[in-house]
Amino acid sequence: MAIEDVLNELKSKIVDKLPKGINVSSLEFEGPELVIYTTDPKAFADNGDIIRSIAKDLRKRVVVRPDPRMLAEPEEAIKRIKEIVPAESGVSNHYFDTDTGEVIIEAEKPGLVIGRHGSTLREITKHIGWTPKVVRTPPIESSTVKDIRQYLRSVKEERKTILKGIGRKIHRPISNKDQWIRITTLGGCKEVGRSSFLLSTPESKVLIDCGVNTGAESNGTPYLYVPEVSPLSQLDAVVLTHAHLDHSGLIPLLYMYGYEGPVYMTPPTRDLMALLQLDYIEVANREGKRPPYESALIRETLKHTITLNYGDVTDIAPDIRLTFYNSGHILGSGIAHFHIGEGLYNVAFTGDFKYEKTRLFDPAVNQFPRIETIIMESTYGGMHDMQPARRDAETELQHIVKTTLSRGGKVLIPTFAVGRSQEVMIVLEEAIRKGIIDNVPVYLDGMIWEATAIHTTYPEYLNVELQDMIFHKGQNPFLSPAFVRVDSSQKREKILQDPSPCIVLATSGMMNGGPVMEYLKMYGPDKRNTLVFVGYQAEGTLGRRIQKGWTEIPMSTNGKTEVMKINMEVATVDGFSGHSDRRQLMEYVKRMEPRPERIITNHGDENKCLDLASSIYKKHKLETRSPMNLETIRLI
Amino acid sequence: MAIEDVLNELKSKIVDKLPKGINVSSLEFEGPELVIYTTDPKAFADNGDIIRSIAKDLRKRVVVRPDPRMLAEPEEAIKRIKEIVPAESGVSNHYFDTDTGEVIIEAEKPGLVIGRHGSTLREITKHIGWTPKVVRTPPIESSTVKDIRQYLRSVKEERKTILKGIGRKIHRPISNKDQWIRITTLGGCKEVGRSSFLLSTPESKVLIDCGVNTGAESNGTPYLYVPEVSPLSQLDAVVLTHAHLDHSGLIPLLYMYGYEGPVYMTPPTRDLMALLQLDYIEVANREGKRPPYESALIRETLKHTITLNYGDVTDIAPDIRLTFYNSGHILGSGIAHFHIGEGLYNVAFTGDFKYEKTRLFDPAVNQFPRIETIIMESTYGGMHDMQPARRDAETELQHIVKTTLSRGGKVLIPTFAVGRSQEVMIVLEEAIRKGIIDNVPVYLDGMIWEATAIHTTYPEYLNVELQDMIFHKGQNPFLSPAFVRVDSSQKREKILQDPSPCIVLATSGMMNGGPVMEYLKMYGPDKRNTLVFVGYQAEGTLGRRIQKGWTEIPMSTNGKTEVMKINMEVATVDGFSGHSDRRQLMEYVKRMEPRPERIITNHGDENKCLDLASSIYKKHKLETRSPMNLETIRLI
Repeated sequence: MAIEDVLNELKSKIVDKLPKGINVSSLEFEGPELVIYTTDPKAFADNGDIIRSIAKDLRKRVVVRPDPRMLAEPEEAIKRIKEIVPAESGVSNHYFDTDTGEVIIEAEKPGLVIGRHGSTLREITKHIGWTPKVVRTPPIESSTVKDIRQYLRSVKEERKTILKGIGRKIHRPISNKDQWIRITTLGGCKEVGRSSFLLSTPESKVLIDCGVNTGAESNGTPYLYVPEVSPLSQLDAVVLTHAHLDHSGLIPLLYMYGYEGPVYMTPPTRDLMALLQLDYIEVANREGKRPPYESALIRETLKHTITLNYGDVTDIAPDIRLTFYNSGHILGSGIAHFHIGEGLYNVAFTGDFKYEKTRLFDPAVNQFPRIETIIMESTYGGMHDMQPARRDAETELQHIVKTTLSRGGKVLIPTFAVGRSQEVMIVLEEAIRKGIIDNVPVYLDGMIWEATAIHTTYPEYLNVELQDMIFHKGQNPFLSPAFVRVDSSQKREKILQDPSPCIVLATSGMMNGGPVMEYLKMYGPDKRNTLVFVGYQAEGTLGRRIQKGWTEIPMSTNGKTEVMKINMEVATVDGFSGHSDRRQLMEYVKRMEPRPERIITNHGDENKCLDLASSIYKKHKLETRSPMNLETIRLI
Repeated sequence: MAIEDVLNELKSKIVDKLPKGINVSSLEFEGPELVIYTTDPKAFADNGDIIRSIAKDLRKRVVVRPDPRMLAEPEEAIKRIKEIVPAESGVSNHYFDTDTGEVIIEAEKPGLVIGRHGSTLREITKHIGWTPKVVRTPPIESSTVKDIRQYLRSVKEERKTILKGIGRKIHRPISNKDQWIRITTLGGCKEVGRSSFLLSTPESKVLIDCGVNTGAESNGTPYLYVPEVSPLSQLDAVVLTHAHLDHSGLIPLLYMYGYEGPVYMTPPTRDLMALLQLDYIEVANREGKRPPYESALIRETLKHTITLNYGDVTDIAPDIRLTFYNSGHILGSGIAHFHIGEGLYNVAFTGDFKYEKTRLFDPAVNQFPRIETIIMESTYGGMHDMQPARRDAETELQHIVKTTLSRGGKVLIPTFAVGRSQEVMIVLEEAIRKGIIDNVPVYLDGMIWEATAIHTTYPEYLNVELQDMIFHKGQNPFLSPAFVRVDSSQKREKILQDPSPCIVLATSGMMNGGPVMEYLKMYGPDKRNTLVFVGYQAEGTLGRRIQKGWTEIPMSTNGKTEVMKINMEVATVDGFSGHSDRRQLMEYVKRMEPRPERIITNHGDENKCLDLASSIYKKHKLETRSPMNLETIRLI
């Protein structure tokens, strides 16, 4: 059946379901959504359940947009919106898109613009014709978020064309009679870094993640040249589990080598991904290495991004539906769950996941409508990879900070910008608020501030307690006055010269560059100060050396190499990891519902992947496998 | 390095090794051979060891051909050949090829034309300039062999161009730095039929077998449409282990879908393959089915065939060397052994194999220079798949025949044309010769005669005892006057009407068509006669039904269906199989030298493959796997 026939058939089904007199001017696939254009947006708005019921019947994501003739003038529309929406919502901006008939409303409290079950939105539609979409005004301004939103608005026409093409490709008729599902491992198996998988059926091909191992001399990129993924133009979709570079780093490269399709991810993943990718090529340039792509390709990626919230069941190929579930690892990190065929098979890729409630996130989801095979990470999959309880780690960190401050010292914490920094910030904010530690400034240097701003843009991706604090108690810990942004070298210099006690969170997390080095130089010689490691220090990094007890560090300043003496206290606090430890990995499988048939371990050193697979097999009697890269496993 | 540079470098190496004054006019890759053209063929001929030493040094198959200017006139050449070659060699024909400077000498005893270590051949070269190649005059004329030889002569110029292209492709410089070796399963895993594997490295792709499951309604063909093997034009080589259709049946199809490269196999496999493929499309046509290809594509296949004898180590890709070893299954059947990289890895595909000395063949080879992974068949891999000893089977068959003949009955043996027929023929011939059974005619109906003629063309592929009988005792059992060819329906009718005792071997082996049906109709009602099954009867075939005890068989004669009463005795003699039984499979692994690291089982029902793999793992502590079709296993 041709795509036009599919649309005609859908249209007549929809018209049948609509109350008499409600008009459907046209129907179009735009990305994974089925868009109904109507001259009666009010009628749809009045019957809030109609769309939900149509969506359920057709098993499609359905959106209603007004026929362009029905749209009010923007000035008039703004006036009406102001009347309908409560003042407390803090509407800060409006963007009108005449092509889609959408008005994007930027508000401090989007929930108040949406209303219960979308009632306020429908009210707006009824009065102005335009379809309102709401985005949050970031409480801390994020230049990343601002730039991305602006860029997407600037390419909206091109994007609409792209989405239409994608929509038609997704809904093409299925031609193949064979039935099989395969996973090909392209990177990240029996190793950490360059994660990438291909999921294929006779009909479709989906790439899951496309990471880079930034630390590797060779073997840093996934095996994208093998015939299974070539030509890249034949991929139906790319799916990104989370923003870290070992999962997202080489996605822009796909667009250099012929891919033109969509990349699916959650909204926070999109923003964090762009932030980290830009930083990746910036660092490469700074270090005199040739980055694998230019920033134009990051924009190309953004142009093809389709964001999905947790739980949105979405067609991404004729025979594949994708749903993201919270994975508890970093902001927006998702477990990618694929439903294949009509009830044929279900497979999920955990990406990185934390099966423990943390300060920021709920534990990773392990309840699915159906699941036969799960591909899970094994970073801490070894027999003895136990981590201290989160509570104990927090207490230890507070104790170290308290002791240091009380002797007039400064605390320096090297951290990754995304994830660990925000965890530590919440712990410190609470300790200061509750008077456990002194009210000293907490300086945030490097990309930490920007990453935090992105966190404040998406509070609905944080855990329930944090959301409750932010939404109902009006208490956003990230907005605490204790946090001070360091955004210039003058400001940094001033802080470095200031003798008063303070806490500094600075990148990079393993001390192989970044502003943390300046603080180390200044604070290192004074034994009252403390250096606290809260994250993994890889072999070969300065962080690892200091952790191992090196006290004389060769440092180059203005071209000259001098040996610096480290007198400051050095402490390591385990337990802040965004990865599940061995016990959590085993519990995750044990409590999974329904019980899967097969578990494939990856994302860990060879012995960790093997150990975890063998333990799961012995304990839970599930079929397990630990493939190498470049293998293909048939699921059915 | 460009291919011309490679050749120049090789030429200077060769010239360095040659005694002063021996001239090399040019050097060319032709298929896997490096051909030296010279105006001094005599000098090369006088120094028999030079070529062997050059070949060993360069690790290439080296052939010397005379510069065309050095060739004697054909009449003169024939005269000289007659003078040099002993009269007992039975030279029956000469074919001169001016392009290659080769003369093909057809002789009854090729060994006498070759001489010890090729001494007589060199003598011939010295006198006539032409390079002699010797082929056997089939003692029983085989129209297949005759047609193929004639066809190949008719396309020799095209073939030369093809070989040059292949030669240059094989010897292209290696460009890839990655190191991995993968096997992709395309058919014949956890099933019997449509055997096909892809062996790939970053540099090369080789397809091993491309069979068809003639009995299957669907899933009869390997998964050739998956991206791993596409486009077919990028394959470096196709390798065929043996002629049976479940391994060879769809090779011609590859040439329909863009493959233009070589197919490697032994010389008898080439002839048997063509015979079976032609029969395959003939049967399909007769049954009103559309055959998957026409005979033109079988000829296309022959045009691209490169034959290798057991033990010939041959470059087939820049990083892959192929060697066939006897697998003891049928005439010319080979274990395909691949040496990859310079000492990097060794993997062998057994194809079908028999690890027991049979009347026709030596047991399958299980000693290799090196071997890390072996892919082995599991037809009888189940725990209880034991077969009687060959001797016992023979005694039982003789006993049945004797008893039947002594009561004035006839013996009907349905068999496959290739393999089992010739085994049974040898047993019967010996029994008649030794007077164990009466000297009655043994009628051969269907393709059996033709297949036997091909066997007599290649006695060097039979086991040592049989070769000894044929070559030194002048006693070729296949030429026994007891064997009578049935090559017309008149002849068959006469035999059917003849009341005297006899033995009939007729196809098809499972009684689903073929001349055997005529004999069944005539012999079935008489209880003095005996029907003897010596091969496997698949579920759903008439053979299986009769074996299970059916005595009333609906038969259609001239369009009318009549029920025929089977009164004849029905017997089954197990033990003639060309496959290793369970004990032989286990022994094959146990006695393999060197000990491999990993064993992959295939070519058997799912439970047989799994059972064999698990038993080998438990007993021999080797890593084993039983993949599904469409999986990729990485070897290194």
